[in-house]
Amino acid sequence: MNQAFLDRVRIVLVNTTHPGNIGGAARAMKNMGLSQLYLVDPYRYPHEEATRRASNADDVLEGAVVVKNVQAAIEGCDLVIGTSARERRIPWPLKDPRACMAEAVSPRHQRNIAILFGREHSGLTNEELAMCQLHLHIPTNPDYSSLNLAAAVQVVAYECRMLAQGETVEVSEASGWDMPLADAGDVERMHQHMANTLATINFIDPANPKQALTRLRRMFSRIRLDEMEVSILRGMLNRIDKAVARNKAD
Amino acid sequence: MNQAFLDRVRIVLVNTTHPGNIGGAARAMKNMGLSQLYLVDPYRYPHEEATRRASNADDVLEGAVVVKNVQAAIEGCDLVIGTSARERRIPWPLKDPRACMAEAVSPRHQRNIAILFGREHSGLTNEELAMCQLHLHIPTNPDYSSLNLAAAVQVVAYECRMLAQGETVEVSEASGWDMPLADAGDVERMHQHMANTLATINFIDPANPKQALTRLRRMFSRIRLDEMEVSILRGMLNRIDKAVARNKAD
Repeated sequence: MNQAFLDRVRIVLVNTTHPGNIGGAARAMKNMGLSQLYLVDPYRYPHEEATRRASNADDVLEGAVVVKNVQAAIEGCDLVIGTSARERRIPWPLKDPRACMAEAVSPRHQRNIAILFGREHSGLTNEELAMCQLHLHIPTNPDYSSLNLAAAVQVVAYECRMLAQGETVEVSEASGWDMPLADAGDVERMHQHMANTLATINFIDPANPKQALTRLRRMFSRIRLDEMEVSILRGMLNRIDKAVARNKAD
Repeated sequence: MNQAFLDRVRIVLVNTTHPGNIGGAARAMKNMGLSQLYLVDPYRYPHEEATRRASNADDVLEGAVVVKNVQAAIEGCDLVIGTSARERRIPWPLKDPRACMAEAVSPRHQRNIAILFGREHSGLTNEELAMCQLHLHIPTNPDYSSLNLAAAVQVVAYECRMLAQGETVEVSEASGWDMPLADAGDVERMHQHMANTLATINFIDPANPKQALTRLRRMFSRIRLDEMEVSILRGMLNRIDKAVARNKAD
């Protein structure tokens, strides 16, 4: 049993409306041996309905970390997976829970693995999905695809446990990489820096960035940046910022 | 999609106490494309709590067949699977949901396939389990194995659907992408442009570029850039060049 893997899985519930779903998610997590629960700006929490639905998983619930935004929830992670019910305008690598977890367990990932679950009615925003390297889609009946939030957490947590129990682990091409994967928080800061720099040089209009920023995010999400690469990209952006500042000062 | 298989799966809830669990099970079934629900002597049914939890799966709920005992629920089936949370005194072939469903889908089975779910607190009796050819065990944290009934139905129904879907669904980078892959010549010109720009802003010394350029090449080589991405990157480089040129002209 690969408990170390289960310990690294972080379930992130974004803007959850119904406290009962938070409790149901905590119960599903504990059943499957997961413990890291992050709540991004929940509507009502703590709440007695959450505690009731959590049943005896109150330790998971009490250990939940409440944060203000997704950025704060993905700090310390080197893989961020976003659950997605819909097709997007710009296609993103989309995998079912089994394929996602097979990738997550790869020895390439040494830090925490965040799995984001969106709002009950509207899911994750495009901006939140753009912070993810992988989009996870739970297969459903196309005529009735509105999976309950706690049920979705249950399915994903179950796949985590099935994998931790000893499914064959596929060693990907990237094991034995020379650099650790970058922290998701650092990658997000790099993206924000890039957006600022691109606005400064008038490559994008911050009020109307169109698709360019999304496409750049998608591109980097496919790469899975390592620490050195993020550092090189930040260095490039700093140099560009200086060139522009010097120009403006003249 | 093997819908014929899904149509043959019969979910049998035995002596369910809480009507909410019946509704939750109906919803989980419909989400995954199952429709045959059998209720063996439910405590309270029909019940508004069942209808509420079923959400829009009321067709599954209304189609539910209420019977007096397990014997009546397994008529017309050629495989009966019993879910079991505990080890039994007499060991029985015990399989996880994936292995059970792999067996169920075998062409050996042409009729309906019953999957029995026991009472919330005590599960199936030894007599009921003895009517089953297979015992299904959902892997759980041994310290907290009390899976909610609707959650157990969710996991099993999900495995049914994964199996009915056949191959793992994946929108890969190559198929169904929205843009054609970039021409290798264009990618090479983009790299040369980048090297020039990075020299101009003094990010690298052209005489001694060290590892930065190699690392940037390796970074981009890990994905296959599409035409739009190369065009965006070239556009960025042009903008940076202009910012620097303006500076020098001053």
